[in-house]
Amino acid sequence: MKSELLVIKIGGQVIEDESVLSQVLQQFAHLSCKKILVHGGGALANQLAEKLGHPQMMIEGRRVTDIETLKLTTMVYGGFINKNIVAKLYTFGCHAIGVTGADGDLIRSKKRAPNPVDYGWVGDIQHVNLPRLMEWLDAELIPVVAPLTHDGKGNLLNTNADTIANKIATSLSEKFSVTLIYSFEKSGVLLDIDDESSRVAQITSSEFSALKKEGKIFAGMIPKLDNAFQAIQSGVQKVILGKAVELNQLIQGTAGTTLVKEKRL
Amino acid sequence: MKSELLVIKIGGQVIEDESVLSQVLQQFAHLSCKKILVHGGGALANQLAEKLGHPQMMIEGRRVTDIETLKLTTMVYGGFINKNIVAKLYTFGCHAIGVTGADGDLIRSKKRAPNPVDYGWVGDIQHVNLPRLMEWLDAELIPVVAPLTHDGKGNLLNTNADTIANKIATSLSEKFSVTLIYSFEKSGVLLDIDDESSRVAQITSSEFSALKKEGKIFAGMIPKLDNAFQAIQSGVQKVILGKAVELNQLIQGTAGTTLVKEKRL
Repeated sequence: MKSELLVIKIGGQVIEDESVLSQVLQQFAHLSCKKILVHGGGALANQLAEKLGHPQMMIEGRRVTDIETLKLTTMVYGGFINKNIVAKLYTFGCHAIGVTGADGDLIRSKKRAPNPVDYGWVGDIQHVNLPRLMEWLDAELIPVVAPLTHDGKGNLLNTNADTIANKIATSLSEKFSVTLIYSFEKSGVLLDIDDESSRVAQITSSEFSALKKEGKIFAGMIPKLDNAFQAIQSGVQKVILGKAVELNQLIQGTAGTTLVKEKRL
Repeated sequence: MKSELLVIKIGGQVIEDESVLSQVLQQFAHLSCKKILVHGGGALANQLAEKLGHPQMMIEGRRVTDIETLKLTTMVYGGFINKNIVAKLYTFGCHAIGVTGADGDLIRSKKRAPNPVDYGWVGDIQHVNLPRLMEWLDAELIPVVAPLTHDGKGNLLNTNADTIANKIATSLSEKFSVTLIYSFEKSGVLLDIDDESSRVAQITSSEFSALKKEGKIFAGMIPKLDNAFQAIQSGVQKVILGKAVELNQLIQGTAGTTLVKEKRL
């Protein structure tokens, strides 16, 4: 039987609120099974760009990564956020190692084609280095992964953190029984975005499609759930979405939204 | 007999000039023995601080690291410079992993006492994690170390890159015959700072003291040579200072300044 492993993605406002982040990291540090943390970054890079007078171009809610934005995200995601999470985890006795996809050649990606939309220096993941992950996990190191990858030609590429979590979880499913948790500031999938009590405890792929059509699931939740369903179809044992500060309850299945795999007909 | 290992520090203008940096990294990548790269950062962090309108306070040529400066250096050293070096090294087939002292608990330090001068969030190294370095070297990973350490209490600390190189080289001397190279934009120790042909090929500790008294060695060269002599007195086999683009010649001993250990009377 495969042993348990947790891949936990933290994102959204969780990263920006030091006290919330600290609560989440403390819960993460105390999880007793093998685990990996993947973090986003969002607003902090925007704030720095604003201070520097560099306008951020967005297309359909997605940032266009020009070369200056790539530099800023490398600084903020790969530097500031990643290293502060690592330093903080040591206060809870967690032996973290902060990496981007370039470090140890962990994640190779390909610059996205400029058609139909040119998102700039954005990478689509091609390969996760499973032996490298195993090396670190075997050494009892806890990888903390920033949303940057590289193309092997000297370029760093901005890469969606949800997708990184999905691909890492999928890759590790070969060796472990993997639970993937997408955690953020909401309680899970909500039928009414403004009502935390409208949480759906379980969701299937066809229910997701129906809610999407009704316009009840929209914006950033769509690619997140696309990633989540892709993971569960690709060997990940369990996928749960929910509030980061409820990490322990999410893992125990007493909070959040659990994805349910539909039996193929 | 111990096998050879190289600890190479790159700093100064080398970091800022993309074409020079590329030449140096190519030579570094092709070195066939075990090796570690330590980099500085200097001017890039200052430039960012200037753009953000954050004045840098300097005391005797040393930056005072207030909390905002620590944030900037974490972004620039731990993020931008470190990750770009790593991505670039892969183009030369070098399996690099970029780390700060926090990653894998590589280097613990203590915040410097505020007396007589309060340098702010600056760390004095207390411990280098030799088993961690061995883990990475055994896995054929090439550590690329940014000039940041941590105190184990959740704080990152700005740490002099020359000192990091010295302490890593000293620590590894237990297992390897270590050559430590301090490389920058000058040809080595010069008797006349404006004349590259005034290079001293070899220097002893007492010659260094004499040149310091005469005022021929000054400013940043003094702490660099202090570090270099400390290393050679603490088990490092060989220490060489010189021009980064001449890395191969420095290693072969046909360029730069080699430190000579004085026989104790």
